[in-house]
Amino acid sequence: MKNSPLLIILCIWIASSNSSAQHHADYERSRWLAAASNFEPQLFTQVKRPVRVVSTTEDESAFQGIGVVFKENTDLFFNTSAKENSGKILDFGEHLTGHVTFSVEQIGLIFDGAIRLKFTFGETPSEVATSFDSYNGTLSRAWLQDETITITEMPSSVTFSRRLAFRYVKMEVVGCSDFADFKVSGLYVSASTSAKARVDSLPASTSKLIKKIDQVALHTLSECMQTVFEDGPKRDRRLWIGDLYLQMLANHHSFKNDSLVKHCLYLIAGLSYDNGTVPPTLYERPVPNAPDSPLLDYALIYNVILREYLLQTGDTRTIEDLWPVAKKQVENTMSYINNDGLVDYERTDKDWWIFFDWHEKLDKQTSLQGCMIWAYQQTYDLAKILGKEGEVEYLPELTQRMSKAALDSLYDNKMGVFFSGADKQVSYASQAWMILSGVASKVIGSNALQNLNQLEGVTKPGSPYLYHFVIEAMIKVGLEEDARKRLENYWGGMINKGADTFWEVYRPEDDFASPYNAHLVNSYCHAWSCTPVYFIRKYPHIFK
Amino acid sequence: MKNSPLLIILCIWIASSNSSAQHHADYERSRWLAAASNFEPQLFTQVKRPVRVVSTTEDESAFQGIGVVFKENTDLFFNTSAKENSGKILDFGEHLTGHVTFSVEQIGLIFDGAIRLKFTFGETPSEVATSFDSYNGTLSRAWLQDETITITEMPSSVTFSRRLAFRYVKMEVVGCSDFADFKVSGLYVSASTSAKARVDSLPASTSKLIKKIDQVALHTLSECMQTVFEDGPKRDRRLWIGDLYLQMLANHHSFKNDSLVKHCLYLIAGLSYDNGTVPPTLYERPVPNAPDSPLLDYALIYNVILREYLLQTGDTRTIEDLWPVAKKQVENTMSYINNDGLVDYERTDKDWWIFFDWHEKLDKQTSLQGCMIWAYQQTYDLAKILGKEGEVEYLPELTQRMSKAALDSLYDNKMGVFFSGADKQVSYASQAWMILSGVASKVIGSNALQNLNQLEGVTKPGSPYLYHFVIEAMIKVGLEEDARKRLENYWGGMINKGADTFWEVYRPEDDFASPYNAHLVNSYCHAWSCTPVYFIRKYPHIFK
Repeated sequence: MKNSPLLIILCIWIASSNSSAQHHADYERSRWLAAASNFEPQLFTQVKRPVRVVSTTEDESAFQGIGVVFKENTDLFFNTSAKENSGKILDFGEHLTGHVTFSVEQIGLIFDGAIRLKFTFGETPSEVATSFDSYNGTLSRAWLQDETITITEMPSSVTFSRRLAFRYVKMEVVGCSDFADFKVSGLYVSASTSAKARVDSLPASTSKLIKKIDQVALHTLSECMQTVFEDGPKRDRRLWIGDLYLQMLANHHSFKNDSLVKHCLYLIAGLSYDNGTVPPTLYERPVPNAPDSPLLDYALIYNVILREYLLQTGDTRTIEDLWPVAKKQVENTMSYINNDGLVDYERTDKDWWIFFDWHEKLDKQTSLQGCMIWAYQQTYDLAKILGKEGEVEYLPELTQRMSKAALDSLYDNKMGVFFSGADKQVSYASQAWMILSGVASKVIGSNALQNLNQLEGVTKPGSPYLYHFVIEAMIKVGLEEDARKRLENYWGGMINKGADTFWEVYRPEDDFASPYNAHLVNSYCHAWSCTPVYFIRKYPHIFK
Repeated sequence: MKNSPLLIILCIWIASSNSSAQHHADYERSRWLAAASNFEPQLFTQVKRPVRVVSTTEDESAFQGIGVVFKENTDLFFNTSAKENSGKILDFGEHLTGHVTFSVEQIGLIFDGAIRLKFTFGETPSEVATSFDSYNGTLSRAWLQDETITITEMPSSVTFSRRLAFRYVKMEVVGCSDFADFKVSGLYVSASTSAKARVDSLPASTSKLIKKIDQVALHTLSECMQTVFEDGPKRDRRLWIGDLYLQMLANHHSFKNDSLVKHCLYLIAGLSYDNGTVPPTLYERPVPNAPDSPLLDYALIYNVILREYLLQTGDTRTIEDLWPVAKKQVENTMSYINNDGLVDYERTDKDWWIFFDWHEKLDKQTSLQGCMIWAYQQTYDLAKILGKEGEVEYLPELTQRMSKAALDSLYDNKMGVFFSGADKQVSYASQAWMILSGVASKVIGSNALQNLNQLEGVTKPGSPYLYHFVIEAMIKVGLEEDARKRLENYWGGMINKGADTFWEVYRPEDDFASPYNAHLVNSYCHAWSCTPVYFIRKYPHIFK
């Protein structure tokens, strides 16, 4: 029977929930979910219309080889034959997220048959220039944003039930009587965001490039701020702890929607698994629910977010309420530390998903060691702020032991870099996490990062997500100039390629890189890419 | 400027409507439209669910080479993985017309991506077995009934905005995460018709075949009875005068929804052109409107319907109200009769669309001559019933002159058949219309029809529509046995090929015949095919 595994899980859950401890945990989770619903964010919506009609062109210098050129004004488009306009692309001039409505009106005296329209929505030009028919990605084809609709009456107005995220909309007439004609007389999006606050301008002296990066990062962030902090409004449209961490850092320096952070923290706590581990991601609708796939680095980052949120807001009441969740993340992960102070990667890898970066070849052992130390330290610091350090009194000894083990076992004195795994892989990730954890002193860390430049075969970051931790590590060890260059080159590189929101994946050498075997399904407005907002505004003396 | 022709037409219309005669005509049309809305029919809806799951098979003996075989019960389908069920076909066991709703539910603990479902609705097995991708028909692709929808939340329930007409529904999963699964947990149609009355059973002694033909014809009729008498609920979904004539004949002997006939008669009158000619077809929504394409035989048949309706119902008030419309149809067509009493086909063909049958090679001159005489005679008869024969006192002389001319010029004494056009084409259509008009006496007509059997190259009927007039003509000249055989062979032939509603086009020698270069867009539940209901019930001594 197909349902057996599900039934077994349910039975185990029901059986286990008979204990009084479980009853208490159930009660706490419902209470946290209720608290989350008390902080439902308000969505601000605004009607936005396309600003011009464009066509795509093959352009080697453009991102993914597809550029756009101005074709005509939208007035012309909305007042002429849809048949003649078939294939044209409406450009909204900016990335928008929301519900799209279009209207059609008959031209001439005859409307003698149903019509069939296809709309393709793209965050980038290539999405509206490339057929989806040969899609062969590992993610659901349904994420691609094309909608075909049949209309049997004129005039008609249609709102797509699906929320869309796009800048470009291609319209195609795929069915119409030869004897009739009609026009697409209007198309707009009711664009939504929960980011509304006016954001302070950067100092006038700030460079053009930094200003531009900041502006695109702000727009990326605001597009991802919906009823939760989403990872990407096109895909997956959901809260992930890793993205949330970078978003809450950027949000604190910009839109300051603390209530949205609190809403997310309570949602996550309310959906924690029976053993207390927080889920790495969740779905809000139809009712809040989370997939059963614990992710170790994200579970730990939850604690880091709690501490950061408390420092940002002083909201002791919320963080005291959620403190038991933080403790659980430590308790459920420390058993993977061997007596020698090193994380048992093999065992961990069996029980957990471990992320750190979209990089098919990254060895994650050293990063995990660093991330655990870093998160445990911050958890202990949080406990101290709350006056609860007695509850986690074992942490200082543990992190010291782990730090010593790391320096003893994962650092190559001769080469001056940290390595990871049996093959002694040298990566940006390992150096960054050894620095952020404090395993690497300022001198060792600074040298390690600089030594990477001289080495061959260094594993580079695969996504903006890891870039955040690398830049943070650079700043921590005083490589401020390197940090600035790195940010300018990486995010500036996206801007040079035409980004008006920052991407989920960017590899300067490969425009088509995709963790899903299909660049079309990549998210091109992705939360974890908003981090320049944080860096530029937290460190104005560096990013100027 | 694209709109110029339309603007010119509008200007002419505005200019012409300045006359007081035009003001009166405008007033009458509004009044008739208002009357139509007073007789809006009631739609009766009923929830219907599929009765089994089938798959299609290649089967030379089946219609269009596609048969269906039982696969499983629907319970299984609705309770198992949609991924596993992708491609399966739900069979509702009967043709239904209405709005379809389906629901989806998650299976298992994970739903980590949007899903994309494609539903294909077919009146026949071949529509759900054949890809629409290579559609190359002359009608809008939009008539084909496939709908693709993206769903981003679980569970969901979706109602297609488009009304559908079908017996079979193929479900395909075209997008889903590899890690998640779901089921289509329900699918139903809210089926509608304005035919509700209980229909009298045929005498128990009636043959099985006639009973079956009657039942399928009744279902065809009831499916086409919506807010108007539609030609076909899949396509074009609208009122046509030719179909209306056959429908009102069948309706009178079955569902007896006289109010629906009246509604249609008023709609047509209310949308008559400025010169008083009635439109051959119209659209109800969003507001009643008609295309500008006058069709001569249909304009004349309007008068025949008025007379028939009056005889059926005794509703003198309605028909007196509409009498001016009938007069206009005569006045606007008689100018095409030359002094010799023959219709000037060339001139007529320039100004009018002339139909009579879906047959690419039919010469229509003689049919038109007959149809005009027939309609003028019935109009005069109608005038007499209303006591208004003085208003059309010229008609008896005109029809006599036309009849004499026809017999003198269109009848081949030697061959004993009527011919048509410069190439002297011999067709069923010409014999039928010469008989119905009374040009052919019982003897001449009977011989003419029988002589067709001996001749080579006779143009046969191309559609059930013309078959109606041929069978009516056979009965008129006493060829009752031939009429019975013809009906049994033709409509029985569709039943032998699996029809559960009768088709728009049926040519025994070619399952793929289509006036639109694509059998997929043919209507397979088509009003003009319902005529056996009329014959079987009006002439029980023949069809027994």
